[in-house]
Amino acid sequence: MKFHPVFGMLVSSMFGLSYGLRTLSFKTSGSSAMARKSFFRQSRLAMADITLNRKGSVETTEYRVFFSKEGKEISPWHDIPLKAGDELYNFVCEIPKNTKAKMEIATKEELNPIAQDIKKGNLRFYHGPIFWNYGYLPQTWEDPSVEHPELSVMGDGDPVDVVEIGSKKRSEGELCQIKPLGCLAMIDDGELDWKVIAIAKGDPLFDELNDIEDVEANCPGVVSGIREWFRWYKTPDDKPVNEFGFGGRALNAKETKLVISECNEHWKSLIAGNSDKGKMWTP
Amino acid sequence: MKFHPVFGMLVSSMFGLSYGLRTLSFKTSGSSAMARKSFFRQSRLAMADITLNRKGSVETTEYRVFFSKEGKEISPWHDIPLKAGDELYNFVCEIPKNTKAKMEIATKEELNPIAQDIKKGNLRFYHGPIFWNYGYLPQTWEDPSVEHPELSVMGDGDPVDVVEIGSKKRSEGELCQIKPLGCLAMIDDGELDWKVIAIAKGDPLFDELNDIEDVEANCPGVVSGIREWFRWYKTPDDKPVNEFGFGGRALNAKETKLVISECNEHWKSLIAGNSDKGKMWTP
Repeated sequence: MKFHPVFGMLVSSMFGLSYGLRTLSFKTSGSSAMARKSFFRQSRLAMADITLNRKGSVETTEYRVFFSKEGKEISPWHDIPLKAGDELYNFVCEIPKNTKAKMEIATKEELNPIAQDIKKGNLRFYHGPIFWNYGYLPQTWEDPSVEHPELSVMGDGDPVDVVEIGSKKRSEGELCQIKPLGCLAMIDDGELDWKVIAIAKGDPLFDELNDIEDVEANCPGVVSGIREWFRWYKTPDDKPVNEFGFGGRALNAKETKLVISECNEHWKSLIAGNSDKGKMWTP
Repeated sequence: MKFHPVFGMLVSSMFGLSYGLRTLSFKTSGSSAMARKSFFRQSRLAMADITLNRKGSVETTEYRVFFSKEGKEISPWHDIPLKAGDELYNFVCEIPKNTKAKMEIATKEELNPIAQDIKKGNLRFYHGPIFWNYGYLPQTWEDPSVEHPELSVMGDGDPVDVVEIGSKKRSEGELCQIKPLGCLAMIDDGELDWKVIAIAKGDPLFDELNDIEDVEANCPGVVSGIREWFRWYKTPDDKPVNEFGFGGRALNAKETKLVISECNEHWKSLIAGNSDKGKMWTP
């Protein structure tokens, strides 16, 4: 079987959707493995050979999405590299656009699967859908013991969040390569909770969007829409609006890469045992 | 019984919540009627003697909220005056803040009750709650045959919408007196659909808020929040974002009163039979 680049693309995107026993059969065939190897060398699409294993029923407190690579379970947070080559970063989608179930990384559980958040004993749902794909950057951590020098608030103890603004709806647990374009410094209840704005590789606007001003020019209302979504979404629970550092201004791509780099350093310190890891699960 | 101004305030606010048989009994007693009359003369709180009559069950296609004044059914759109004295305007609340049922004036039905909108045969709900009280200004109409001179779009054929930003949750059908502070020129599928931003009399911030810049100063994120809520809310239905005239800028209070006045003229023309009323119900 000859390698076909378009088919190769299809395979890598289908992998994001393959679960447990439904893993595509050609994954185990020698020829397609060779094809994949060849494809990865060409495109640097690392980690596309990840499969997802669902345990439990959707919308239960037991439901988990685990990640495996080459048959071995991995932690998507700690084992997927942050960088994906060509100035790209890996992004783990937790919440597909236009959905409401508050799926998120279980930072305190072994292997850090995706689980649905629990609030007062109940499965948590947003009041309304989020309009963009939402997830996190692996190998980043917003250290809750480190104060931001300018904003004077501590990190929220989670990986850095990503709002992926592409037109395609991504799936829960899907791994994409993204280009960071900007970020908002959300401050939720006194904790810093960065929201990186990014575009996924393969999106029709990928080449157009290289910095935050390109988003403003090509996608008017998107930056403001993201900021206001995150400002207001908890208010129906009688919580105050969320605040934003830097007067609500989105930082540009260069500043965003610095933020990501800092949070990657915090993660390295966590893994090296040089930070107070609290209840975080690390390998 | 002596008239008590605080009690009078309470009565007027309770009227907004009184339905059909549950109309408060003191409405018919001479002494409280005198008290109300005295109170109205003092405060110009006209139309507080309106009662609501629910017909049908909530969340059914038959459900309607009718309005009566002094025992006689009225059209809230045509029979409640626009102005409420002291630079105030009347506002009919259709959707209480933080709720999702898309309740709206039935412009084509006799007496223009409030009904739940129907979409493709189903009761319509917003995907997520609206974070402010929402309703309309009586005796206004956005004439669908009149083109806005600057924006080159026609009206959407409905009364002018109001987003009331006060802290209190208003009830469905409640009548309030509001102070207009600004407005956004939303353009939905090529139709002009003004969103007046207003504060209700009695709100703790009522005296602070007199123009749109007071909203920006005292309630940061509210104008932007309203604009982005209305920009994005239909996108989960695969509809495009809504557009805004004037580059998304909110017009100020003076400009807003002009907009309201123009739409009041369109309503007068509708009532006088000088406009193509289409299927609108008029007395």
